[in-house]
Amino acid sequence: MEKTKFTLDEKDMPTQWYNIQADLPEPLPPLRHPQTMEPTILPPPLFCDEINKQEFSTERWIDIPEEVQAIYRTWRPTVLHRAHRLEKALDTPAKIFYKYEGTSQAGSHKPNTAVAQAYYNKKAGIKRLTTETGAGQWGSALSMGCMFFGIELKVYMVKVSFYQKPYRRILMETWGATCVPSPSPDTKTGQAVLARDPECTGSLGMAISEAVEDAATHDDTKYSLGSVLNHVLLHQTVIGLETKKVMMEQADTYPDIIVGCIGGGSNFAGMYLPFVKDKIDGTKPDLRIINVEPTSCPTVTKGLYAWDYGDVAGLAPIALMYTLGHDFIPPPVHAGGLRYHGMAPIICHLHKLGFVEARAVPQLATFEAGITFARSEGIVSAPETNHAIRVTIDEALKCKETGEAKTILLAHSGHGHFDMAAYEAYLSGKLKDYDYPEEKVKEALAHLPQVPQS
Amino acid sequence: MEKTKFTLDEKDMPTQWYNIQADLPEPLPPLRHPQTMEPTILPPPLFCDEINKQEFSTERWIDIPEEVQAIYRTWRPTVLHRAHRLEKALDTPAKIFYKYEGTSQAGSHKPNTAVAQAYYNKKAGIKRLTTETGAGQWGSALSMGCMFFGIELKVYMVKVSFYQKPYRRILMETWGATCVPSPSPDTKTGQAVLARDPECTGSLGMAISEAVEDAATHDDTKYSLGSVLNHVLLHQTVIGLETKKVMMEQADTYPDIIVGCIGGGSNFAGMYLPFVKDKIDGTKPDLRIINVEPTSCPTVTKGLYAWDYGDVAGLAPIALMYTLGHDFIPPPVHAGGLRYHGMAPIICHLHKLGFVEARAVPQLATFEAGITFARSEGIVSAPETNHAIRVTIDEALKCKETGEAKTILLAHSGHGHFDMAAYEAYLSGKLKDYDYPEEKVKEALAHLPQVPQS
Repeated sequence: MEKTKFTLDEKDMPTQWYNIQADLPEPLPPLRHPQTMEPTILPPPLFCDEINKQEFSTERWIDIPEEVQAIYRTWRPTVLHRAHRLEKALDTPAKIFYKYEGTSQAGSHKPNTAVAQAYYNKKAGIKRLTTETGAGQWGSALSMGCMFFGIELKVYMVKVSFYQKPYRRILMETWGATCVPSPSPDTKTGQAVLARDPECTGSLGMAISEAVEDAATHDDTKYSLGSVLNHVLLHQTVIGLETKKVMMEQADTYPDIIVGCIGGGSNFAGMYLPFVKDKIDGTKPDLRIINVEPTSCPTVTKGLYAWDYGDVAGLAPIALMYTLGHDFIPPPVHAGGLRYHGMAPIICHLHKLGFVEARAVPQLATFEAGITFARSEGIVSAPETNHAIRVTIDEALKCKETGEAKTILLAHSGHGHFDMAAYEAYLSGKLKDYDYPEEKVKEALAHLPQVPQS
Repeated sequence: MEKTKFTLDEKDMPTQWYNIQADLPEPLPPLRHPQTMEPTILPPPLFCDEINKQEFSTERWIDIPEEVQAIYRTWRPTVLHRAHRLEKALDTPAKIFYKYEGTSQAGSHKPNTAVAQAYYNKKAGIKRLTTETGAGQWGSALSMGCMFFGIELKVYMVKVSFYQKPYRRILMETWGATCVPSPSPDTKTGQAVLARDPECTGSLGMAISEAVEDAATHDDTKYSLGSVLNHVLLHQTVIGLETKKVMMEQADTYPDIIVGCIGGGSNFAGMYLPFVKDKIDGTKPDLRIINVEPTSCPTVTKGLYAWDYGDVAGLAPIALMYTLGHDFIPPPVHAGGLRYHGMAPIICHLHKLGFVEARAVPQLATFEAGITFARSEGIVSAPETNHAIRVTIDEALKCKETGEAKTILLAHSGHGHFDMAAYEAYLSGKLKDYDYPEEKVKEALAHLPQVPQS
């Protein structure tokens, strides 16, 4: 019997997060202040001290507080699967492994940082958090995190999703959070938008502005972000640390290729940062790491490596990253988590330095891959994850051609049980591909902030 | 650090199912033929030979075919959790454990038998299966089972659910099954109903009749049932076998009380049959096993122990069981899986003999318990499971009063990610309790089949 599942005992779970900033061959360019454009730390009113500290830390290992570990243990460690049935369906000599984050209570990897952020804010005496959410993945995960530590949470959810996709909103409320459609009458930003256009269906950028304004104007309230920033990626390294340990100790192997999808980048960086370390220090020079993004929002493959705002309204810090322009609005692909104009600065930095690569795939091909996965491994995956599955299958089929038995590791970010409408669109032939919106990107890239040379 | 999760290594998973029929102090009363009312085996055209054999077997251990074990390993063994946070929230000295089946690809325990049934039919050369489904739990699980073995599947889904709850239908289609609203124009039964009433919204009994007619009138086609029957309960014993082993070997404990919900009974019997054995043979005389059902469909607590048809149309075999009458239609509680007029004969037999007890709980109280569970353990549970959680909490609160540190084991049948509309109804105050429909039950019980004394 060949093993199918590899799991750590909970006593062997990581007790520290891995901070790549300790091992970068060149340090990460510092963020710039959105108004002054000078090098800065995160705007202090938004995040609590410990989070700010982690954002800029260059310590290699950062202790996971026992209180956070205790919550992790309600669903972690997650399982590393060997995809025997997918391999057979593809008739490939490749060995395919996937680390599956869909067994968390929220159905994705997002709680890994939500729990940590809620903890640090609680410890700092913060009574209330605000955040924004698009389709609801992050909003629901943070609702769960805040529930665990007894913090109040208000989520500004893009209005069109609030009404069209009520299930994740209800999930937030089940965990005790308050969720309102954005633009809302609860903030000056929202009021201004509604005065101009009462029918406005909202955008993620607008929701960020509302959440930030709310946090900045209320006592004991901070803001929380679910991706992109260094501390978020740091918390997600539990994925890669668990995987590396269980893969080397139980499966006695090391990946040749690691594949994952990137939107803000936290899930996949969480997987590969503990591995890319081995490429940086030269012990695994041939390791390939493939960031997968949608062709309709190809931040790394087609974007500019430039200074840009993290949000649409220009309130968030300016980062050096691949970007399609902060006011670029991507086509409405179902992978809502991959519709971001920028990318985690750490991922961009590693890409620029040549340690990781990127590939863009079109929507229809991702669902085709998702169906193949569902009909071999059984798991119906999130549309975001289907992007990673597409490239995993492509790489496995290359192995079939060349006869190489490569070890491919897939970062599987979550289940698709809240995304069945997207599967219906695909199965009924209504799903379509979107061309790369070249003109819109060109226009958006004309509005980049002009950052002075340091 | 106190342990939170207990898991077997996959090499220690059960390789045989446990058959309670070997250890019953009195044998199970045989089924009766729906037409002749004579003792019978299952109507032969409906099930394949191996399934029929298992239904009546008195062998204690039945090998799980390696092909089925291989599929089980794609999600099993499931995790036994210690509910530290729930215990703390209740401030109880009780130790609460729960075995969580929600991490299967379908989100519930149903695949345990779906995979086995698909395998045996495949082995018997059957090309196609039919089944019925209400809200879609069983239909989706069998779709997954049939996908794994390359069998065609047609699911007759109650029409009102087909249109109101499309997500589980799409899940079935994602795994490759065909799903039609029942009544359908595809069977004579359906045609007749539609001729009388083109707007008919269907019922589970009607869908069973269509699925049975389809199987009986097509070559290479058999019918499959997801609960109630002995072979279904047999396949589900993997739950209890895993739990018993991991609880005794890793948690070093044995339950004082086991709690679960019963609709057709397969999930909870699958948990407790390997334990009730110890009560029957006298080694654990004090073990308590509590079957939980809705007050609006209180089959065991208020029903008659009598011979009745398994289905509304009177096509299924007649069983001696607790029943509310085969044409009783229960109120529309959200726990669709608990809306069945009868109960697994094995459970009824064990109840009649005094080895297990039953308790009925009202809908609102189950959701209140479900919210407590979601806000302590994080898991948002299926409405069916909330019934079991209600009684688990009640028993834990009794321990608080008496100061007893009892060990309570909860059979957690699945997540509620497809049931968010029910949570919304509860959270918005729109959910209501239903009185026990005494008059309707009285009327239904007047239509029991008149079985001759044997």
